[in-house]
Amino acid sequence: MAYMERTAATGLNEGHPVSDVDRIWAEHIGSTKVKRQHLRPHQVVFYESDPAERMYELVSGTIMLYKLLPDGRRQVVEIISQGDLFGLQYGKYYDCTAESLTDAEIRILDRRDIDTSLGLQQHVGRCLIAKMESMHEHAMLLGRKSAMERVASFLMRMVPNRGMQDCPGPEGDSDEKMIELTMTRQEIADYLGLTIETVSRAISELKRRGLVKIEKQDRILITRVCGMCQITGMH
Amino acid sequence: MAYMERTAATGLNEGHPVSDVDRIWAEHIGSTKVKRQHLRPHQVVFYESDPAERMYELVSGTIMLYKLLPDGRRQVVEIISQGDLFGLQYGKYYDCTAESLTDAEIRILDRRDIDTSLGLQQHVGRCLIAKMESMHEHAMLLGRKSAMERVASFLMRMVPNRGMQDCPGPEGDSDEKMIELTMTRQEIADYLGLTIETVSRAISELKRRGLVKIEKQDRILITRVCGMCQITGMH
Repeated sequence: MAYMERTAATGLNEGHPVSDVDRIWAEHIGSTKVKRQHLRPHQVVFYESDPAERMYELVSGTIMLYKLLPDGRRQVVEIISQGDLFGLQYGKYYDCTAESLTDAEIRILDRRDIDTSLGLQQHVGRCLIAKMESMHEHAMLLGRKSAMERVASFLMRMVPNRGMQDCPGPEGDSDEKMIELTMTRQEIADYLGLTIETVSRAISELKRRGLVKIEKQDRILITRVCGMCQITGMH
Repeated sequence: MAYMERTAATGLNEGHPVSDVDRIWAEHIGSTKVKRQHLRPHQVVFYESDPAERMYELVSGTIMLYKLLPDGRRQVVEIISQGDLFGLQYGKYYDCTAESLTDAEIRILDRRDIDTSLGLQQHVGRCLIAKMESMHEHAMLLGRKSAMERVASFLMRMVPNRGMQDCPGPEGDSDEKMIELTMTRQEIADYLGLTIETVSRAISELKRRGLVKIEKQDRILITRVCGMCQITGMH
C-alpha cells in the first residue's frame, strides 16, 4: 500500500515529529534542484543491472518493479504507488527493472541530499519499513496462498480502507466497488506467481460465483466486497 | 544475505562515509543503555500482532520471521543473520513473529535513539535497503522457481562468496562445501513455499545426482558447488 495512504496510521513519531518529517520532505521535493519526468505507459526507468545512480519518487500513476531469470521467467516484485520511493540500492547496480504501467510522473532524487539530512532520512526509513511489511505480505501470498486466494487478495488491494484488521465493513445496503486494472492479465500473473491461464480461470470462477462483473477487460465490478475478502485466505 | 557481509560491496558512501557510519553504530550499540538478551533455540522474541515497542539487532545465531494465516499455514518471510536488524515496524503492531532457530544473542534498541541521529539512521537505512534486495530475490524464488531450484538456491545461500554475479569459481581441484542447516525440513519448507515432502524429495534427488552427501540430518556436504549453482535457475 502506498506510503501516503498510511501516514495517518503510523505509530512512529520520535526524532522529528511526523508532521515535521512530512514538511521537510515536501520542502525538499519542491526545491528547483529536484527534477520531474513524465513517463508514457510501459516506459522503462531503469533496467536490472544498470548502474544505480539515482533514486525516484512516484508522483502519479503506477510503476512495477520486476526481476527476470535468464530463461525469461519474470516476477513482478513490487507495485509502486503514489508517494512510494524506488531505485534505492545497496549495491552498485539496480536489482530489478522499473517500468511504468500507466502514464506516470516521477521525481528524480539525489541520494547525497537525502543522506545529509536527518529529516529526509527519516522519511526514507519510514517508506522502507512500510515496503518491508508489503513485501512480507507478498511472500505469504506467493508462498502459501492458493490461486483463487491470490487473485482475490490482488483485487482487494485495490479497494481502499477495506480488508484490513479494523475494516469498517460495507456502508449501506450495497457493497459494490468498481476497480480499474492498470495491469494486463500477464502482468497480474507475473505479480501473483501464476500463469496467465490460471489468472483468467480464477476471474471466470469469481464471475460464476457472482462476486465480480467484468465491464471491460480492465474494469471489474466487485459486487460483494465482503464476499471477496472472505476468500483472500485472511479469514 | 547479512548486512555485515555486504559492507565491502556497498556503493553508498554519501553523508557520513561508510566507515563513520559503522563507527557511530558501533559506539551506540557498545553504550551501556543498549541491553543484550540471550535466546535459547525456538524462543519467541515477539509474536505477530504484539505491540511493536522495540527493535533488535542480531549479534549471533539465526532468527526466522514468519507470518501465519488463520488456518495455520505458515510462511517464513525472512531469515535474520548476524548484524541484521529486525522488529522495525511502520504500524503499531509487529507484522510477523520472530523466533530463534539456534542459540542466539540479540541487542535491544530504542527507536528514539536511532531517530535522533543521522549516523544511526544511515546505518538502519542501509540495512533496510539490503533487506529489500533479499526480499526481491525471495519473491522471485517463491513466485517463479521450481521446487528443485528453490532447494538449490537455499543451499547456495549458505555458501559464502559463491553464486553471485562475479563468483570466482572453485579454488583448486575440490569444490566441496560442508553446510550446517539450522532449520528443520518443515522450517525450510515454510521458507521455500513448499511442503515438507517436496523438500525431502528434492534433497533425495540431489543425493541421487551426486551433488550432496547427507552427513547427519542437519549437516549436508555439497560435493560440487558449481554443479549446485547451475540448478538454482540463475544460469
